[in-house]
Amino acid sequence: MKEFIDQTLLMPTRNQHDYEDFFEQVLKYHFFAVCVPPFYVERSKQLLNDSPVQTCTVIGFPNGYNETETKIFETEQALKKDCDEIDMVANLYDLKSANWSNIENEITQIKKVCDNKVLKVIVESSLLEDNEIVEISKVIMNSGADYIKTSTGFHGPGAKLEHIALMKETLKNSNVKIKASGGIRDLEAAKKFIAAGCSRIGTSSGVNIMNEYLGNNDNETTARSDY
Amino acid sequence: MKEFIDQTLLMPTRNQHDYEDFFEQVLKYHFFAVCVPPFYVERSKQLLNDSPVQTCTVIGFPNGYNETETKIFETEQALKKDCDEIDMVANLYDLKSANWSNIENEITQIKKVCDNKVLKVIVESSLLEDNEIVEISKVIMNSGADYIKTSTGFHGPGAKLEHIALMKETLKNSNVKIKASGGIRDLEAAKKFIAAGCSRIGTSSGVNIMNEYLGNNDNETTARSDY
Repeated sequence: MKEFIDQTLLMPTRNQHDYEDFFEQVLKYHFFAVCVPPFYVERSKQLLNDSPVQTCTVIGFPNGYNETETKIFETEQALKKDCDEIDMVANLYDLKSANWSNIENEITQIKKVCDNKVLKVIVESSLLEDNEIVEISKVIMNSGADYIKTSTGFHGPGAKLEHIALMKETLKNSNVKIKASGGIRDLEAAKKFIAAGCSRIGTSSGVNIMNEYLGNNDNETTARSDY
Repeated sequence: MKEFIDQTLLMPTRNQHDYEDFFEQVLKYHFFAVCVPPFYVERSKQLLNDSPVQTCTVIGFPNGYNETETKIFETEQALKKDCDEIDMVANLYDLKSANWSNIENEITQIKKVCDNKVLKVIVESSLLEDNEIVEISKVIMNSGADYIKTSTGFHGPGAKLEHIALMKETLKNSNVKIKASGGIRDLEAAKKFIAAGCSRIGTSSGVNIMNEYLGNNDNETTARSDY
Protein backbone atom coordinates (compact mmCIF):
# COMPACT_ATOMS: atom_id res chain seq x y z
CA MET A 1 0.00 0.00 0.00
CA LYS A 2 2.71 2.53 1.01
CA GLU A 3 4.25 2.39 -2.49
CA PHE A 4 1.06 3.98 -3.87
CA ILE A 5 0.98 6.95 -1.49
CA ASP A 6 2.21 10.52 -1.96
CA GLN A 7 1.85 11.69 1.65
CA THR A 8 0.83 15.32 1.37
CA LEU A 9 1.28 18.46 3.48
CA LEU A 10 -0.07 21.44 1.58
CA MET A 11 -2.28 23.36 4.03
CA PRO A 12 -0.78 26.87 4.15
CA THR A 13 -1.04 27.50 7.90
CA ARG A 14 0.91 24.46 9.11
CA ASN A 15 3.89 25.46 11.27
CA GLN A 16 7.37 24.13 12.04
CA HIS A 17 6.02 21.72 14.65
CA ASP A 18 3.48 20.26 12.18
CA TYR A 19 6.21 19.70 9.60
CA GLU A 20 8.43 17.96 12.16
CA ASP A 21 5.57 15.60 13.09
CA PHE A 22 4.82 15.00 9.42
CA PHE A 23 8.38 13.97 8.53
CA GLU A 24 8.62 11.79 11.63
CA GLN A 25 5.60 9.83 10.37
CA VAL A 26 6.95 9.73 6.80
CA LEU A 27 10.19 8.17 8.02
CA LYS A 28 8.16 5.64 10.03
CA TYR A 29 5.88 4.53 7.18
CA HIS A 30 8.13 5.04 4.13
CA PHE A 31 5.53 6.31 1.70
CA PHE A 32 6.47 6.47 -1.99
CA ALA A 33 6.81 10.26 -1.78
CA VAL A 34 6.03 13.38 0.18
CA CYS A 35 4.22 16.24 -1.54
CA VAL A 36 5.28 19.52 0.06
CA PRO A 37 5.25 23.24 -0.84
CA PRO A 38 8.09 24.63 -2.99
CA PHE A 39 9.70 26.54 -0.10
CA TYR A 40 10.19 23.24 1.75
CA VAL A 41 11.80 21.13 -1.02
CA GLU A 42 15.39 21.78 0.08
CA ARG A 43 14.64 20.87 3.70
CA SER A 44 12.64 17.80 2.62
CA LYS A 45 15.59 16.48 0.59
CA GLN A 46 17.82 16.91 3.66
CA LEU A 47 15.38 15.16 5.98
CA LEU A 48 14.79 12.24 3.57
CA ASN A 49 18.43 11.94 2.59
CA ASP A 50 18.91 8.41 3.93
CA SER A 51 15.49 7.08 2.93
CA PRO A 52 14.02 5.94 -0.41
CA VAL A 53 11.10 8.41 -0.01
CA GLN A 54 10.88 10.79 -2.98
CA THR A 55 10.25 14.54 -2.70
CA CYS A 56 7.46 15.95 -4.83
CA THR A 57 6.37 19.60 -5.00
CA VAL A 58 3.56 21.64 -6.55
CA ILE A 59 3.85 24.29 -9.28
CA GLY A 60 1.35 27.09 -9.96
CA PHE A 61 -0.57 25.64 -7.06
CA PRO A 62 -3.48 25.53 -6.44
CA ASN A 63 -5.08 27.92 -8.93
CA GLY A 64 -2.93 27.35 -12.04
CA TYR A 65 -3.33 30.88 -13.38
CA ASN A 66 0.26 32.03 -13.09
CA GLU A 67 2.19 32.97 -16.21
CA THR A 68 3.81 30.03 -18.01
CA GLU A 69 7.21 31.74 -17.48
CA THR A 70 6.64 31.72 -13.71
CA LYS A 71 5.62 28.05 -13.71
CA ILE A 72 8.80 27.24 -15.65
CA PHE A 73 10.93 29.29 -13.22
CA GLU A 74 9.30 27.63 -10.21
CA THR A 75 9.94 24.17 -11.75
CA GLU A 76 13.59 25.02 -12.45
CA GLN A 77 14.02 26.20 -8.86
CA ALA A 78 12.58 22.92 -7.52
CA LEU A 79 14.81 20.84 -9.78
CA LYS A 80 17.87 22.85 -8.69
CA LYS A 81 17.05 21.69 -5.16
CA ASP A 82 17.03 18.13 -6.55
CA CYS A 83 13.24 17.69 -6.31
CA ASP A 84 12.22 14.26 -7.65
CA GLU A 85 8.70 14.87 -8.95
CA ILE A 86 6.70 17.89 -10.10
CA ASP A 87 2.91 18.28 -9.77
CA MET A 88 1.82 21.30 -11.84
CA VAL A 89 -1.67 22.81 -12.08
CA ALA A 90 -2.98 23.33 -15.63
CA ASN A 91 -4.40 26.74 -16.56
CA LEU A 92 -8.08 26.17 -15.82
CA TYR A 93 -9.13 29.35 -17.66
CA ASP A 94 -7.68 27.88 -20.83
CA LEU A 95 -9.33 24.57 -19.98
CA LYS A 96 -12.75 26.17 -19.41
CA SER A 97 -12.28 28.26 -22.60
CA ALA A 98 -11.24 25.20 -24.68
CA ASN A 99 -7.87 26.80 -25.52
CA TRP A 100 -6.33 23.33 -25.82
CA SER A 101 -3.20 24.34 -27.73
CA ASN A 102 -2.27 26.90 -25.02
CA ILE A 103 -2.45 24.17 -22.40
CA GLU A 104 -0.47 21.70 -24.50
CA ASN A 105 2.23 24.33 -25.13
CA GLU A 106 2.57 25.07 -21.44
CA ILE A 107 2.77 21.42 -20.35
CA THR A 108 5.20 20.57 -23.16
CA GLN A 109 7.53 23.39 -22.08
CA ILE A 110 7.46 22.27 -18.46
CA LYS A 111 8.03 18.62 -19.38
CA LYS A 112 11.08 19.74 -21.34
CA VAL A 113 12.44 21.39 -18.17
CA CYS A 114 11.62 18.25 -16.13
CA ASP A 115 13.45 15.99 -18.59
CA ASN A 116 13.48 12.53 -16.98
CA LYS A 117 11.88 13.72 -13.72
CA VAL A 118 8.21 12.75 -13.33
CA LEU A 119 5.67 15.46 -14.28
CA LYS A 120 2.06 15.20 -13.13
CA VAL A 121 -0.61 17.60 -14.41
CA ILE A 122 -3.45 18.53 -12.07
CA VAL A 123 -6.70 19.21 -13.94
CA GLU A 124 -9.21 19.70 -11.07
CA SER A 125 -11.47 17.05 -12.61
CA SER A 126 -14.33 17.44 -10.14
CA LEU A 127 -14.96 20.90 -11.63
CA LEU A 128 -14.86 19.65 -15.24
CA GLU A 129 -17.50 18.34 -17.63
CA ASP A 130 -16.97 14.83 -19.03
CA ASN A 131 -15.96 16.14 -22.47
CA GLU A 132 -13.38 18.44 -20.81
CA ILE A 133 -11.88 15.45 -18.97
CA VAL A 134 -11.58 13.55 -22.27
CA GLU A 135 -9.99 16.53 -24.06
CA ILE A 136 -7.50 17.36 -21.31
CA SER A 137 -6.50 13.68 -21.09
CA LYS A 138 -5.64 13.81 -24.82
CA VAL A 139 -3.72 17.06 -24.36
CA ILE A 140 -1.66 15.52 -21.56
CA MET A 141 -1.01 12.44 -23.72
CA ASN A 142 0.34 14.68 -26.50
CA SER A 143 2.41 16.85 -24.17
CA GLY A 144 4.72 14.11 -22.87
CA ALA A 145 3.71 14.46 -19.22
CA ASP A 146 3.86 11.31 -17.09
CA TYR A 147 0.65 11.57 -15.07
CA ILE A 148 -2.77 13.14 -15.03
CA LYS A 149 -3.68 14.07 -11.44
CA THR A 150 -7.29 14.69 -10.49
CA SER A 151 -7.33 17.45 -7.87
CA THR A 152 -5.53 20.04 -5.79
CA GLY A 153 -7.62 19.32 -2.69
CA PHE A 154 -8.49 23.04 -2.55
CA HIS A 155 -11.42 23.21 -5.00
CA GLY A 156 -14.45 20.96 -5.35
CA PRO A 157 -15.00 17.46 -3.95
CA GLY A 158 -11.83 15.90 -5.41
CA ALA A 159 -11.27 12.49 -7.01
CA LYS A 160 -14.29 10.58 -8.39
CA LEU A 161 -14.22 6.99 -9.65
CA GLU A 162 -16.30 7.80 -12.74
CA HIS A 163 -13.73 10.43 -13.77
CA ILE A 164 -10.91 7.89 -13.34
CA ALA A 165 -12.78 5.52 -15.70
CA LEU A 166 -13.05 8.31 -18.28
CA MET A 167 -9.32 9.10 -18.04
CA LYS A 168 -8.41 5.40 -18.15
CA GLU A 169 -10.42 4.83 -21.33
CA THR A 170 -9.00 7.93 -23.06
CA LEU A 171 -5.42 7.10 -22.05
CA LYS A 172 -5.57 3.35 -22.79
CA ASN A 173 -3.06 3.46 -25.66
CA SER A 174 -0.58 5.71 -23.85
CA ASN A 175 1.93 5.53 -21.02
CA VAL A 176 0.24 8.30 -19.04
CA LYS A 177 -0.56 7.14 -15.50
CA ILE A 178 -3.23 8.45 -13.12
CA LYS A 179 -2.83 9.99 -9.65
CA ALA A 180 -6.04 10.28 -7.64
CA SER A 181 -6.12 13.03 -5.02
CA GLY A 182 -8.60 15.11 -3.06
CA GLY A 183 -10.88 13.58 -0.45
CA ILE A 184 -9.19 10.15 -0.17
CA ARG A 185 -9.04 9.67 3.59
CA ASP A 186 -9.30 5.93 4.37
CA LEU A 187 -8.16 2.50 3.22
CA GLU A 188 -11.46 1.63 1.56
CA ALA A 189 -11.30 4.71 -0.68
CA ALA A 190 -7.61 4.18 -1.47
CA LYS A 191 -8.26 0.55 -2.48
CA LYS A 192 -11.13 1.59 -4.78
CA PHE A 193 -8.98 4.12 -6.64
CA ILE A 194 -6.12 1.63 -6.99
CA ALA A 195 -8.54 -1.03 -8.28
CA ALA A 196 -9.84 1.54 -10.78
CA GLY A 197 -6.34 1.82 -12.23
CA CYS A 198 -4.68 4.67 -10.33
CA SER A 199 -0.92 4.30 -9.92
CA ARG A 200 -0.63 6.88 -7.16
CA ILE A 201 -2.83 8.25 -4.35
CA GLY A 202 -2.27 11.80 -3.11
CA THR A 203 -3.56 12.21 0.43
CA SER A 204 -2.86 13.92 3.74
CA SER A 205 -4.30 10.82 5.46
CA GLY A 206 -1.51 8.39 4.58
CA VAL A 207 -0.85 7.53 8.22
CA ASN A 208 -4.50 6.62 8.83
CA ILE A 209 -4.59 4.57 5.63
CA MET A 210 -1.41 2.67 6.55
CA ASN A 211 -2.64 2.03 10.10
CA GLU A 212 -5.86 0.58 8.72
CA TYR A 213 -3.86 -1.46 6.21
CA LEU A 214 -1.50 -2.79 8.86
CA GLY A 215 -4.33 -3.38 11.32
CA ASN A 216 -2.95 -0.93 13.87
CA ASN A 217 -5.30 0.63 16.33
CA ASP A 218 -3.52 3.93 16.81
CA ASN A 219 -5.45 5.84 14.16
CA GLU A 220 -3.80 9.03 15.19
CA THR A 221 -4.74 12.04 13.16
CA THR A 222 -2.01 13.36 10.90
CA ALA A 223 -2.12 16.70 9.06
CA ARG A 224 -5.82 17.48 8.93
CA SER A 225 -7.36 18.79 5.75
CA ASP A 226 -9.43 21.34 7.65
CA TYR A 227 -8.08 24.32 9.60
CA MET B 1 -17.55 54.46 -3.31
CA LYS B 2 -15.98 53.19 -6.53
CA GLU B 3 -12.62 54.74 -5.62
CA PHE B 4 -12.38 52.31 -2.70
CA ILE B 5 -12.97 49.13 -4.71
CA ASP B 6 -10.49 46.64 -6.18
CA GLN B 7 -12.95 44.64 -8.30
CA THR B 8 -11.66 41.09 -8.17
CA LEU B 9 -11.73 38.08 -10.49
CA LEU B 10 -9.62 35.30 -8.98
CA MET B 11 -11.72 32.13 -9.15
CA PRO B 12 -9.63 29.68 -11.17
CA THR B 13 -12.38 28.17 -13.33
CA ARG B 14 -13.68 31.39 -14.89
CA ASN B 15 -13.54 31.31 -18.69
CA GLN B 16 -13.04 33.77 -21.53
CA HIS B 17 -16.73 34.73 -21.51
CA ASP B 18 -16.65 35.46 -17.75
CA TYR B 19 -13.59 37.71 -18.20
CA GLU B 20 -15.27 39.61 -21.05
CA ASP B 21 -18.35 40.24 -18.88
CA PHE B 22 -16.13 41.27 -15.97
CA PHE B 23 -14.21 43.90 -17.96
CA GLU B 24 -17.40 45.21 -19.51
CA GLN B 25 -18.70 45.91 -15.98
CA VAL B 26 -15.37 47.38 -14.88
CA LEU B 27 -15.44 49.85 -17.76
CA LYS B 28 -19.02 50.76 -16.83
CA TYR B 29 -18.38 51.39 -13.11
CA HIS B 30 -14.75 52.59 -13.14
CA PHE B 31 -13.55 50.93 -9.97
CA PHE B 32 -10.20 52.00 -8.54
CA ALA B 33 -8.58 48.79 -9.77
CA VAL B 34 -9.13 45.29 -11.04
CA CYS B 35 -7.43 42.41 -9.25
CA VAL B 36 -6.75 39.62 -11.77
CA PRO B 37 -4.48 36.55 -12.03
CA PRO B 38 -0.89 37.02 -13.25
CA PHE B 39 -1.54 35.40 -16.64
CA TYR B 40 -4.16 38.08 -17.40
CA VAL B 41 -2.16 41.23 -16.51
CA GLU B 42 -1.04 41.95 -20.07
CA ARG B 43 -4.57 41.62 -21.46
CA SER B 44 -6.00 43.69 -18.58
CA LYS B 45 -3.61 46.56 -19.36
CA GLN B 46 -4.74 46.45 -23.00
CA LEU B 47 -8.44 46.41 -22.10
CA LEU B 48 -8.10 49.25 -19.56
CA ASN B 49 -5.76 51.30 -21.72
CA ASP B 50 -8.06 54.30 -22.07
CA SER B 51 -9.48 54.22 -18.56
CA PRO B 52 -8.10 55.35 -15.18
CA VAL B 53 -8.71 51.86 -13.73
CA GLN B 54 -5.51 50.34 -12.33
CA THR B 55 -4.42 46.73 -12.84
CA CYS B 56 -3.48 44.77 -9.74
CA THR B 57 -2.31 41.16 -9.61
CA VAL B 58 -1.55 38.51 -6.98
CA ILE B 59 1.82 36.93 -6.17
CA GLY B 60 2.36 33.55 -4.48
CA PHE B 61 -1.40 33.35 -4.38
CA PRO B 62 -3.31 32.06 -2.48
CA ASN B 63 -1.10 29.84 -0.29
CA GLY B 64 2.06 31.97 0.01
CA TYR B 65 4.43 28.99 0.34
CA ASN B 66 6.38 29.48 -2.86
CA GLU B 67 10.09 30.18 -2.70
CA THR B 68 10.99 33.85 -2.23
CA GLU B 69 12.90 33.68 -5.56
CA THR B 70 9.71 32.61 -7.33
CA LYS B 71 7.67 35.38 -5.73
CA ILE B 72 10.31 37.89 -6.84
CA PHE B 73 10.32 36.46 -10.40
CA GLU B 74 6.51 36.55 -10.56
CA THR B 75 6.54 40.18 -9.36
CA GLU B 76 9.16 41.17 -11.95
CA GLN B 77 7.10 39.51 -14.69
CA ALA B 78 3.98 41.45 -13.65
CA LEU B 79 5.89 44.75 -13.55
CA LYS B 80 7.35 44.05 -17.01
CA LYS B 81 3.73 43.92 -18.21
CA ASP B 82 3.28 47.33 -16.57
CA CYS B 83 1.13 46.06 -13.70
CA ASP B 84 0.20 48.93 -11.35
CA GLU B 85 -0.19 47.18 -8.00
CA ILE B 86 1.06 43.93 -6.44
CA ASP B 87 -0.82 41.89 -3.80
CA MET B 88 1.55 39.25 -2.41
CA VAL B 89 0.75 36.50 0.09
CA ALA B 90 3.09 36.27 3.10
CA ASN B 91 4.59 32.87 3.97
CA LEU B 92 2.05 31.64 6.52
CA TYR B 93 4.33 28.80 7.70
CA ASP B 94 6.83 31.44 8.80
CA LEU B 95 3.98 33.44 10.32
CA LYS B 96 2.62 30.45 12.25
CA SER B 97 6.19 29.55 13.32
CA ALA B 98 6.97 33.12 14.44
CA ASN B 99 9.90 33.37 11.99
CA TRP B 100 9.37 37.12 11.77
CA SER B 101 12.74 38.00 10.24
CA ASN B 102 12.18 35.55 7.33
CA ILE B 103 8.91 37.28 6.54
CA GLU B 104 10.41 40.76 6.81
CA ASN B 105 13.30 39.75 4.52
CA GLU B 106 10.91 38.41 1.88
CA ILE B 107 8.62 41.45 1.90
CA THR B 108 11.57 43.86 1.90
CA GLN B 109 13.04 42.17 -1.19
CA ILE B 110 9.73 42.29 -3.03
CA LYS B 111 9.14 45.95 -2.10
CA LYS B 112 12.58 46.71 -3.55
CA VAL B 113 11.48 45.13 -6.85
CA CYS B 114 8.18 47.07 -6.73
CA ASP B 115 9.98 50.38 -6.16
CA ASN B 116 7.26 53.07 -6.37
CA LYS B 117 4.51 50.62 -7.35
CA VAL B 118 2.06 49.81 -4.54
CA LEU B 119 2.76 46.57 -2.63
CA LYS B 120 0.06 44.97 -0.47
CA VAL B 121 0.82 42.04 1.83
CA ILE B 122 -1.93 39.47 2.41
CA VAL B 123 -1.74 37.92 5.89
CA GLU B 124 -4.91 35.75 6.02
CA SER B 125 -5.92 37.47 9.25
CA SER B 126 -9.01 35.34 9.91
CA LEU B 127 -6.67 32.36 10.50
CA LEU B 128 -4.39 34.32 12.86
CA GLU B 129 -4.35 34.89 16.61
CA ASP B 130 -4.52 38.50 17.82
CA ASN B 131 -0.82 38.53 18.79
CA GLU B 132 0.10 37.26 15.31
CA ILE B 133 -1.90 40.11 13.73
CA VAL B 134 -0.03 42.64 15.88
CA GLU B 135 3.39 41.12 15.06
CA ILE B 136 2.79 40.84 11.30
CA SER B 137 1.52 44.42 11.24
CA LYS B 138 4.84 45.54 12.76
CA VAL B 139 6.81 43.41 10.28
CA ILE B 140 4.94 45.01 7.36
CA MET B 141 5.58 48.47 8.83
CA ASN B 142 9.34 47.71 8.96
CA SER B 143 9.46 46.18 5.47
CA GLY B 144 8.36 49.26 3.54
CA ALA B 145 5.21 47.71 2.06
CA ASP B 146 2.29 50.05 1.38
CA TYR B 147 -0.66 48.00 2.59
CA ILE B 148 -1.63 45.16 4.86
CA LYS B 149 -4.43 43.13 3.22
CA THR B 150 -6.61 40.84 5.30
CA SER B 151 -7.46 37.82 3.16
CA THR B 152 -7.11 35.86 -0.06
CA GLY B 153 -10.80 34.88 -0.12
CA PHE B 154 -9.72 31.23 -0.37
CA HIS B 155 -9.14 30.38 3.29
CA GLY B 156 -11.27 31.13 6.35
CA PRO B 157 -14.09 33.63 6.74
CA GLY B 158 -12.14 36.70 5.51
CA ALA B 159 -12.11 40.28 6.79
CA LYS B 160 -13.28 40.97 10.36
CA LEU B 161 -13.82 44.42 11.87
CA GLU B 162 -12.06 43.51 15.15
CA HIS B 163 -8.93 42.57 13.19
CA ILE B 164 -9.02 45.88 11.32
CA ALA B 165 -9.11 47.68 14.69
CA LEU B 166 -6.04 45.72 15.82
CA MET B 167 -4.13 46.56 12.62
CA LYS B 168 -5.21 50.22 12.80
CA GLU B 169 -3.96 50.57 16.37
CA THR B 170 -0.61 48.85 15.62
CA LEU B 171 -0.06 50.88 12.43
CA LYS B 172 -1.16 54.26 13.85
CA ASN B 173 2.28 55.89 13.59
CA SER B 174 3.01 54.59 10.09
CA ASN B 175 1.94 55.19 6.50
CA VAL B 176 0.79 51.59 6.00
CA LYS B 177 -2.80 51.44 4.77
CA ILE B 178 -5.34 48.62 5.14
CA LYS B 179 -7.16 46.68 2.41
CA ALA B 180 -10.10 44.59 3.63
CA SER B 181 -10.98 41.55 1.51
CA GLY B 182 -12.76 38.25 1.80
CA GLY B 183 -16.53 38.01 2.32
CA ILE B 184 -17.40 41.68 1.63
CA ARG B 185 -20.43 41.32 -0.63
CA ASP B 186 -22.76 44.28 -0.04
CA LEU B 187 -22.80 48.05 0.53
CA GLU B 188 -23.47 47.76 4.25
CA ALA B 189 -20.33 45.65 4.79
CA ALA B 190 -18.22 47.86 2.52
CA LYS B 191 -19.29 50.99 4.44
CA LYS B 192 -18.44 49.38 7.79
CA PHE B 193 -14.90 48.49 6.69
CA ILE B 194 -14.35 51.97 5.23
CA ALA B 195 -15.64 53.56 8.46
CA ALA B 196 -13.21 51.31 10.38
CA GLY B 197 -10.33 52.90 8.48
CA CYS B 198 -9.79 50.69 5.42
CA SER B 199 -8.48 52.54 2.37
CA ARG B 200 -9.39 49.78 -0.07
CA ILE B 201 -11.99 47.01 -0.35
CA GLY B 202 -11.18 43.86 -2.33
CA THR B 203 -14.34 42.16 -3.53
CA SER B 204 -15.83 40.21 -6.42
CA SER B 205 -19.16 41.91 -5.64
CA GLY B 206 -18.21 45.43 -6.74
CA VAL B 207 -21.09 45.65 -9.20
CA ASN B 208 -23.66 44.75 -6.54
CA ILE B 209 -22.10 47.22 -4.12
CA MET B 210 -22.13 50.03 -6.70
CA ASN B 211 -25.72 49.27 -7.72
CA GLU B 212 -26.79 49.48 -4.08
CA TYR B 213 -24.78 52.68 -3.67
CA LEU B 214 -26.28 54.26 -6.80
CA GLY B 215 -29.76 53.00 -5.93
CA ASN B 216 -30.03 50.88 -9.06
CA ASN B 217 -32.38 47.95 -9.06
CA ASP B 218 -30.51 45.72 -11.45
CA ASN B 219 -28.53 43.82 -8.82
CA GLU B 220 -27.19 41.50 -11.44
CA THR B 221 -24.79 38.91 -10.20
CA THR B 222 -21.22 39.44 -11.26
CA ALA B 223 -18.45 36.87 -10.86
CA ARG B 224 -19.75 34.62 -8.11
CA SER B 225 -17.47 33.56 -5.32
CA ASP B 226 -18.82 30.00 -5.38
CA TYR B 227 -18.41 27.52 -8.22
